[in-house]
Amino acid sequence: MRFDIVSANPKILEEVLRHGLISRAEGKALVSTHVHSLRDYAEGRYRQIDDVPYGGGTGMVLKPEPLFRCIEELLSQREYDEVIYLSPQGAKYDQRKANELSLKDNLMLICGHYKGIDERVIRKFVTLELSIGDYVLSCGDIAALAVVDSVTRLLPGALGDGESAITDSFQVETGFDYPQYTRPAVYKRLKVPAVLLSGNHREIALWREKKAKAKFRKAKRSNKEK
Amino acid sequence: MRFDIVSANPKILEEVLRHGLISRAEGKALVSTHVHSLRDYAEGRYRQIDDVPYGGGTGMVLKPEPLFRCIEELLSQREYDEVIYLSPQGAKYDQRKANELSLKDNLMLICGHYKGIDERVIRKFVTLELSIGDYVLSCGDIAALAVVDSVTRLLPGALGDGESAITDSFQVETGFDYPQYTRPAVYKRLKVPAVLLSGNHREIALWREKKAKAKFRKAKRSNKEK
Repeated sequence: MRFDIVSANPKILEEVLRHGLISRAEGKALVSTHVHSLRDYAEGRYRQIDDVPYGGGTGMVLKPEPLFRCIEELLSQREYDEVIYLSPQGAKYDQRKANELSLKDNLMLICGHYKGIDERVIRKFVTLELSIGDYVLSCGDIAALAVVDSVTRLLPGALGDGESAITDSFQVETGFDYPQYTRPAVYKRLKVPAVLLSGNHREIALWREKKAKAKFRKAKRSNKEK
Repeated sequence: MRFDIVSANPKILEEVLRHGLISRAEGKALVSTHVHSLRDYAEGRYRQIDDVPYGGGTGMVLKPEPLFRCIEELLSQREYDEVIYLSPQGAKYDQRKANELSLKDNLMLICGHYKGIDERVIRKFVTLELSIGDYVLSCGDIAALAVVDSVTRLLPGALGDGESAITDSFQVETGFDYPQYTRPAVYKRLKVPAVLLSGNHREIALWREKKAKAKFRKAKRSNKEK
């Protein structure tokens, strides 16, 4: 699977992609990530990539020319399953969408910054506009990282020994995991629940299901109370 | 405003915090970010920070001791408004929550990884459990970046000249921004809407409001259709 990320902040992305899960998955040849700096596609002495918005207003808008050049170059090299623009205006990104995207071969991600990108780019190229949540980020790069990470971990072999995204099964049902405990069994007089030390797998499974459901109900309540 | 971020993947964070909006806000002394590597608080030859879960199951859980040591050290140094744990189980993080957090002085963010952290840490220290969206990430660090970025840009002076988070006003009402255009007015025969070149501020404001609402309706529809 291949990700091409078009960005005005390539440094943010490049460093993160060199660490953690994504870089390990690249080492196993499960995924390849390619960051494209818009400035490399800009012209003129200052290689300007943004400009003031037509009609007034504060903030800067990414200019159409560097984006067109970069995206057209990529489109001439291979077919993309989706050209994704990350913005608060997009459809909600969730685990179902992550699963869908994990089955694709080539994804292009376009990161906005400041006040966004020229609308002509969206109309011409974008096949999917996605939002990772109802909050405003200074740039789409952090959103792109969330998408690349959450999709990559679903690829067979991306997680460590014996681990697998299939063990997120509770997450499919309730969106929630059960409480986790590890050694030591007693730390500062705080004990691991006895059932987890019992060796009774049926009891452990029941306890975990109960706890996951209770967490789910509690979070639903606290989201409502806001 | 100060962020302390407790992490098993400090490299991911440190690099990102050195670029973009957050580092510019640090340069203006609006915010300071401090990354604390759990491995520095681990003991033994291998400085182990995770272990297998009690009760079985795949994946690794962050051990309580390094987390306790790191968090207790920080708590002894200053008062925190919130100790936040980032997880898919948390309350939904949104722009309202970002606004609330932007008024605080000291925030501690705890990033999980793999299968999460020992529940005793959550019970003992965490005052707020937050989720940036309904998807599973390989680690909480990307979620922490989303929180730090979205909060920092709300701090007065964090955005560039003349820009301000107050210009997100459409976002407060509908959660959506209007389409943006910048120079050139015609590019590859694609034109900027005439109204934006008209100089008629009333017409421009009406057009933008209409477009923002239309985007909002379209996204709501596409979220429903999933």
